[in-house]
Order: sequence, then structure tokens, then C-alpha cells
Amino acid sequence: MRGAFITIEGTEGAGKSSAVETARGWLQAAGHRVVCTREPGGTGLGEELREVLLSHRDGGMTPAAEVLLMFAARAEHIERVIRPALDAGDWVICDRFSDASIAYQGSGRGLGVDQVQALAAWLHPDLQPDLTLWLDLPVETGLARAAERSAPDRFEREKTAFFERVRAGYQTIAERAPDRVRRIDAAQSPAEVSAAIIDALQRFAHVD
Amino acid sequence: MRGAFITIEGTEGAGKSSAVETARGWLQAAGHRVVCTREPGGTGLGEELREVLLSHRDGGMTPAAEVLLMFAARAEHIERVIRPALDAGDWVICDRFSDASIAYQGSGRGLGVDQVQALAAWLHPDLQPDLTLWLDLPVETGLARAAERSAPDRFEREKTAFFERVRAGYQTIAERAPDRVRRIDAAQSPAEVSAAIIDALQRFAHVD
Repeated sequence: MRGAFITIEGTEGAGKSSAVETARGWLQAAGHRVVCTREPGGTGLGEELREVLLSHRDGGMTPAAEVLLMFAARAEHIERVIRPALDAGDWVICDRFSDASIAYQGSGRGLGVDQVQALAAWLHPDLQPDLTLWLDLPVETGLARAAERSAPDRFEREKTAFFERVRAGYQTIAERAPDRVRRIDAAQSPAEVSAAIIDALQRFAHVD
Repeated sequence: MRGAFITIEGTEGAGKSSAVETARGWLQAAGHRVVCTREPGGTGLGEELREVLLSHRDGGMTPAAEVLLMFAARAEHIERVIRPALDAGDWVICDRFSDASIAYQGSGRGLGVDQVQALAAWLHPDLQPDLTLWLDLPVETGLARAAERSAPDRFEREKTAFFERVRAGYQTIAERAPDRVRRIDAAQSPAEVSAAIIDALQRFAHVD
């Protein structure tokens, strides 16, 4: 039986890494084989492109180049990691997927949500996450948390207004796909966030 | 006045570099300011991606990743080099452009000519070359010439059948855009090829 494809989304400092671990633990306890991966990255080429994308460079890069690089890494990731795992019956938990490109480059960088959605439809017309956990919290809260953690990468150095647009992008995605996207209030305590994630997984596994 | 956008296309060993020099010389003598550039490359990010694309890597990369990388480099190239030059009234000669992606990844790698054409339409709906010089010659002749020149890159190591598909892709492009694409018989002597290029430019400049 094909496994399920679960993606974790959200802006900086929303707690995606913890959410991946919470979901992995619950799914494994429920008897599933789980593959955890991330974007951009997840393959040799993907990690190379992740470096190119996150490193500081003079003059940055154009939004179209940025989103096409994201999808190049994603093409490799789908073909070499996600599809083989799903076909083998594993459940795949992916830290960011095409929704991130729609929110960050479509809404945040201003390319347009529909424009980036069209690229996703071009690359993977027959693959969608079965469940997306959107960790949502006020931008300032997330940035303060992220700042405690490490030096900012090229995205984390963006201004608050950029992340407000990204958050609005996620809101649009959630409104368009209410059955797939489950909003998790990530401003809650870690224990409450974990409980909300497990609740979402239970409902999904029950319906599944 | 906006400059003209001229692209040079063809498979390995067709003589694109010489064609660029011939065209540059003739256009400059005709009084135009000329910018020569190439793909993949032409910008800092583009040259970085060129390295990623042409270097040998274990297991290669998926055709979709390859074409998206090509278009990522192209996005940067259009925005930072081609459009500014055309807007400034310069003539731009570009060694390869989207036709190469259509021929190499669409036809050669089997992604489909229409699929890659759709990406080109996504990225640059309002920019097309004004004139494309397609240097066409038998695949074996081109590969023999290329082999004399340097160690083969990741594309040049492909088999003859791959380049036959690429050549067929160029043929399709030429049939679809007969007003834009001028086929040059690149199996002729260098002097004859130069004469054909100059003839094509004269006709273009006359019509223009």
C-alpha cells in the first residue's frame, strides 16, 4: 500500500523541526515506517542548491531564479526520495514542499501565488501532500525565536513585511485547500503544539 | 530604440563560438553596439549553475531538475543582462537560449517539446529572440569536431542517439517558427558558414 505524504510548513521560528520529530514519533508508534526529509535539500544536488539558495550573495538573485532553483531541487527530491519512499509504503514527512515556494516566492517575493502554483502543477501534477501541518504564529514571535537559535541565513535576514506576506500566502493556501491543510497555532507552548499535531495526525489516520 | 536579440543555436561542434564572433564583427561594422553572452551562464549565479550543470556527477540528475536549473540561470540572465542591454539599445548575441532547453531537455532528454515550451512561456512570455541562427550539421561530424577541441563535459559524453533527438528538436522548433529561425548548413567550410551567417544578418537587418 502506498504511504502517506505529510508536509510541515510555516515561517521562521514556527517550530518545524520539533513538529517533524513529534510526527515521526507518533507515526512510528502507530506502526508506520517513516522517512523524514527536507526542502530545499534532501538529495546531493538538492543540498548543493540549498547552499546556493541560502548563502549571502551580493545583489541577491531574481525571484524567478530563486523559485526555479527551488523547483529544480524539488524535481530531484520527488524523483529520488519522495516517490520511491511512498511507492515502498513508507510515510514521508517533509519539512517544506511546494506550498513554501507559493508562500515565499509567490506571495513574499511578489511573483504571484497563481504563477508559482502553475510551476507546481507543471512539475508534479499527480503528487500532492495528503496532509499539510501549517505551523502558524505571529511573525515577530517567530523571528524572535529564530534569532535565539542561530545566525540568520539569506531568508531570515528579510524584513518583517516580507514574512507578513509569506504568512498571508500560507493563509491563502489554507483557504484554498481546507481539507488538506491543518492550521496549528504555533504560538502555544511546545506541549500544546505537540498535542495539536498529534490530534491532527489522529484525525488524518482515522479518516485515511 | 530597443536593440535586437539574436540567438545562436546548435549541437556540439557546430561552430557556435565562431558564429558569435562573425555576427559580432558584422554587426559592429554596421554600427551597432553589441553585447555577447552565453547560456547557461552570463551572470555570477548563472556561471555557478553552469558548473553544477556541466560537471560530472554520480547518477547525473533528473531531466526535470536539469531543465529547471537551466531556466533558473536564464531568469537571472534575462533580468540582469539581456533586458537591460536591449532596453539600452544594444544588440544582444546569445550563445544558446530557450530553444536549447527545448531541444536538449524537451527532445533529447524526453521531457517533451511542449512541456519545455510551457516553461519558456512561463518565464518570458514577452521576450523572444528576433532572429535565431541554427547551425545544423550531422551529429557525427559535430561530435568529431568537438572531440578534437577539449575533454567532454556531461552533455558531450552523451551518446549519438541523444544528439540525434536534440537535432530533431531543433528541426521541430525551426518548423514551428520559420520566420524567426534561420538554418545555417554548418557542415560547410568555415568561410561558407561565415558567408551564410552574414547573409542571414543582412536579410534580417534589411527587413528590420
